[in-house]
Amino acid sequence: MRYSKIQDLPTKWAHFCLNISSFVHRQAGVSLKGKKVLAGFSGGPDSAALVLAMHYLAPSLNMKLEAAYLDHGLRREAGEDLALVQDTCSQLSMKLHLGRSNVSRLAGRGRGGIEETARRLRYRYLHGVARKTGADYVLTGHHLNDLAEDILMRLQRGTGWPGLSGMRAYVPERRILRPLLMIPRKCIMDFLETAGQGYVLDATNKDKTFLRNRVRMSLVPEFEAINPGFLKSIANIWRLGRVDADYWDHILEEARQDVQEEDLVPGDLLSGMHQAARMRLYKKTLDSLGPGQALVENIFKLDELWQSRKTGARVQFPGDKEALISREGIEFRHISHGTEKKGS
Amino acid sequence: MRYSKIQDLPTKWAHFCLNISSFVHRQAGVSLKGKKVLAGFSGGPDSAALVLAMHYLAPSLNMKLEAAYLDHGLRREAGEDLALVQDTCSQLSMKLHLGRSNVSRLAGRGRGGIEETARRLRYRYLHGVARKTGADYVLTGHHLNDLAEDILMRLQRGTGWPGLSGMRAYVPERRILRPLLMIPRKCIMDFLETAGQGYVLDATNKDKTFLRNRVRMSLVPEFEAINPGFLKSIANIWRLGRVDADYWDHILEEARQDVQEEDLVPGDLLSGMHQAARMRLYKKTLDSLGPGQALVENIFKLDELWQSRKTGARVQFPGDKEALISREGIEFRHISHGTEKKGS
Repeated sequence: MRYSKIQDLPTKWAHFCLNISSFVHRQAGVSLKGKKVLAGFSGGPDSAALVLAMHYLAPSLNMKLEAAYLDHGLRREAGEDLALVQDTCSQLSMKLHLGRSNVSRLAGRGRGGIEETARRLRYRYLHGVARKTGADYVLTGHHLNDLAEDILMRLQRGTGWPGLSGMRAYVPERRILRPLLMIPRKCIMDFLETAGQGYVLDATNKDKTFLRNRVRMSLVPEFEAINPGFLKSIANIWRLGRVDADYWDHILEEARQDVQEEDLVPGDLLSGMHQAARMRLYKKTLDSLGPGQALVENIFKLDELWQSRKTGARVQFPGDKEALISREGIEFRHISHGTEKKGS
Repeated sequence: MRYSKIQDLPTKWAHFCLNISSFVHRQAGVSLKGKKVLAGFSGGPDSAALVLAMHYLAPSLNMKLEAAYLDHGLRREAGEDLALVQDTCSQLSMKLHLGRSNVSRLAGRGRGGIEETARRLRYRYLHGVARKTGADYVLTGHHLNDLAEDILMRLQRGTGWPGLSGMRAYVPERRILRPLLMIPRKCIMDFLETAGQGYVLDATNKDKTFLRNRVRMSLVPEFEAINPGFLKSIANIWRLGRVDADYWDHILEEARQDVQEEDLVPGDLLSGMHQAARMRLYKKTLDSLGPGQALVENIFKLDELWQSRKTGARVQFPGDKEALISREGIEFRHISHGTEKKGS
């Protein structure tokens, strides 16, 4: 590390850090003043830049910063990762929490591949440490290239708006904060070089068999070849999406105040709503019943049935959920096998 | 041509035609019953399928169908194109309108490359013929792959929502109708083969130097490799976008009823609006002043100025337009050089 304080950084990179702070405050709507935060630190460039930038910002924010590393026991480089993480934290006089998982064993049993399992375990570990240590926020190193990949992944799946505009900078229900979300990867690498901060590259990132890596290695570069300002476009789409997400949150919150019974959306409420609002209300109500992503086709189908008032008709959704058109409106509920026929 | 009437077609392909008819009616909201329509017919597979499908649908809709071909005098295949178009129209006993342009000459002078100039000339010709012959609608052969390309083009430019969801099936102000918009190219090729309908492939389509062709040849195939259902995702995003476009049209129409003076958006109207609606109102008002696409960054900037009530501040937009924060609200107007300082 070449610089210990933000005041020592070259002006450009001091501004880089201050812009991150301003993004957290203005766009993510989070004040870090006097807070305790826990940064996930894998040893990769993204989290190394996160830890370093937050370290530079900590004094002026009177913020307490700790790091956490979960050893997945997976890759050959893991030892190298740990050494770098420990070394960095000791240089920065930063408390480091260490954990161990066994991804390979768990991935065999659960849903999803190794990548997905590792991700879930990492978050679970981070939240566990945050709870134990009283950290206010969990910080991750997601940056603008990750956001671009996320948006392209959502596009290929056919995600609706504003979901299509990508991950949030702040996830209040899990207190996850992504301070680097508007920073291109290139800029992160330059920052690390300027700061003299080392990192370890994950060899599995180059494995094209992972869907996400294919998006990273083929699609994003092709978009950037077509438009060198592609990442700026992504940032704009994201900002517009955040504005609309807030808009629809308000509209649906208002609508849901009129929902008296738990899972009945009353017909007179629906009648006063535009299809754009109705379909989002269906989705929100389904989401509130638990995991399982509703397909766009089925949301459209449900709305057609509602519009033609097909009383008794039902549409099933993943996660053992269903919606039933009744005389009172639409009932959203779990399919309880056995009593399934009750409402018809 | 193997079949002269829809009744003769294999069931699957009769349904294919009927689905197109139902799409036009239900999604595009256009009734073709008793109407006269003009199909652009270049000799390529898309327009050949368009002409053929509409030919099969014409009798039951009591619809009068004519075709128009504009010879750009560009490619070596042009003679072949014209022969195929004439041959097909004569087989279908369909009236064909023929025109001639000189793209190369015009492209040198005007804005945009040859492709863009050819496109403008084609539309101008089609509308001219439609006007002269009293056609109600101009039909084009845009299909689901074109829509995917369009969405990816808009994504790389950073287009906002619902614009991001792609071209409309019906453009009322120009009476352009795109009956094939939900049909994948693959399906169009199968239809042509089944029907024994010939077509001419445009060699310039393979030229990677055209941005659009790069999207066609690299991005779309890569998305399809990642998700074989990619075109279905595109269709879903499009449908969702249409619902939201209708929603925002209503919201903005209501808002604009409160706009008394031509280009002043009053402050008390803006104060009651969410940022999502405000920013769309800015864009709509700017668009109504004439050509010139406003950048997302500048729309955000204008809204920041408005929110902090920076009276006297102004933001310039392409097409010699500007917005001025005044005590009464926001004035949108053309920059008339010379009187530019008047309002400050």
